[in-house]
Amino acid sequence: MTVDPEPRPAGWLAVVGLGPGDPNWLLPEARDVISHATDLVGYQTYLDLVPPELRVSPKLHASDNGAELGRARHALALASAGRRVAVVSSGDPGVFAMASAVFEAQSAADAPDDWQLVDVHVVPGVTAALATAARVGAPLGHDWCCISLSDNLKPWSIVERRLIGALDADFALALYNPVSRQRPTRLADAFALIRARRAGTTPIVLGRDVGRPGERVRALSLRDVDLSECDMRTVILVGSSTTRFGASGPAGQRVFTPRWYPSESTER
Amino acid sequence: MTVDPEPRPAGWLAVVGLGPGDPNWLLPEARDVISHATDLVGYQTYLDLVPPELRVSPKLHASDNGAELGRARHALALASAGRRVAVVSSGDPGVFAMASAVFEAQSAADAPDDWQLVDVHVVPGVTAALATAARVGAPLGHDWCCISLSDNLKPWSIVERRLIGALDADFALALYNPVSRQRPTRLADAFALIRARRAGTTPIVLGRDVGRPGERVRALSLRDVDLSECDMRTVILVGSSTTRFGASGPAGQRVFTPRWYPSESTER
Repeated sequence: MTVDPEPRPAGWLAVVGLGPGDPNWLLPEARDVISHATDLVGYQTYLDLVPPELRVSPKLHASDNGAELGRARHALALASAGRRVAVVSSGDPGVFAMASAVFEAQSAADAPDDWQLVDVHVVPGVTAALATAARVGAPLGHDWCCISLSDNLKPWSIVERRLIGALDADFALALYNPVSRQRPTRLADAFALIRARRAGTTPIVLGRDVGRPGERVRALSLRDVDLSECDMRTVILVGSSTTRFGASGPAGQRVFTPRWYPSESTER
Repeated sequence: MTVDPEPRPAGWLAVVGLGPGDPNWLLPEARDVISHATDLVGYQTYLDLVPPELRVSPKLHASDNGAELGRARHALALASAGRRVAVVSSGDPGVFAMASAVFEAQSAADAPDDWQLVDVHVVPGVTAALATAARVGAPLGHDWCCISLSDNLKPWSIVERRLIGALDADFALALYNPVSRQRPTRLADAFALIRARRAGTTPIVLGRDVGRPGERVRALSLRDVDLSECDMRTVILVGSSTTRFGASGPAGQRVFTPRWYPSESTER
């Protein structure tokens, strides 16, 4: 990257959460930042989630999924050269998404000095767990955890340790990245841990493409879950010992976790 | 409650997340639902977060904080009588907020039959943990937990069990409701558990009134935390073993958790 020796307008870099995809769930700040950007950087699927009227003027830089660190470096190079760059992610960019990749790239030992001067701003968004929870009621209404089941960047032993810790401490769980072609059996491994620690009546919610065309949300008991329904676009919510099915009204099956917790131990 | 014997237009009940308070973080769906409501129900502090132009036409029903179940019942009674009711919460209504209370009230054994027919819809929002995280970088970029430190509705033993489980499984933590006049020593109890399980260099983030006037965000090491800075309006983020301070750029001190996790055990 060549740096212009003349004074130049300061660039910036915003990591922007698009939410699940529905424009009704896009924050005004996200819309505002994107409309002022000269460059949009993102995985093609996420660039496609940007409302068409905001995709017209900035230059688009699409990249493959998985190439997160390269995308982050490209965005920092553009911003340090004076461009106004929005890196777009679905959901909240701080939850298993691009914000960490950008700070990793900026803080790397071999990062150019001028990347340190880039003002990186994060615009939050509605993360998939909360979008899915809203569709069925309030399954995450008490203490809960977010866990990515991907072992691309962490050993599976860490996933297991966190699943077991969260299950034994009776959290509700939101499981991201549940399955992929590279890891066909990991979801079954995770559910073996879950089935050993939760009653068969525990509510499970499968949310696929929530907030996008083709959305499908299913609430059912642990004993009735068919894991073949899950793919990489599914978020899975697992109830705690107090999570229950509620009234099944006009909106379908409801699931909620009460605000209270019984005084007696609920360990089984 | 008297029910009109004549056919009446169907009411509805929406539990609406206002986000932290900044209108730039209010979802279009929340704005739309509130603008179609005949009645707004909420704790006065949250009613005050509704943009003034949306507060003009609907009838306001303010109540004290803590009176959540009464507020939920009032909202269900209004909706079942044909009103269009928005129950407003700050943040995301499904995270330690009003959504669970509404489903608890609707599913109670003594709930009137016509409450079961009310279509309860949840509009998500930006929860305080993610708003605070966005301000400092990406501290929740890997697996993380949400825990309420309030023991109003759960025994402290459950809070301890969840804190220990989450710390030992090396999650990053977001702690809600950290302190109140009724429980002056609980935060110190929680930090005793944290200090026994995290290095003194672990990044801690204190976010007070994030997204509201007077916002204050502080990022500092565990060994330097002064708990007297925290009150009920503070959200506390606690790093995992991999959370680190990043480049301190124009936006101030940055904190992030990398996407990767080392293969070697990090247990101390």
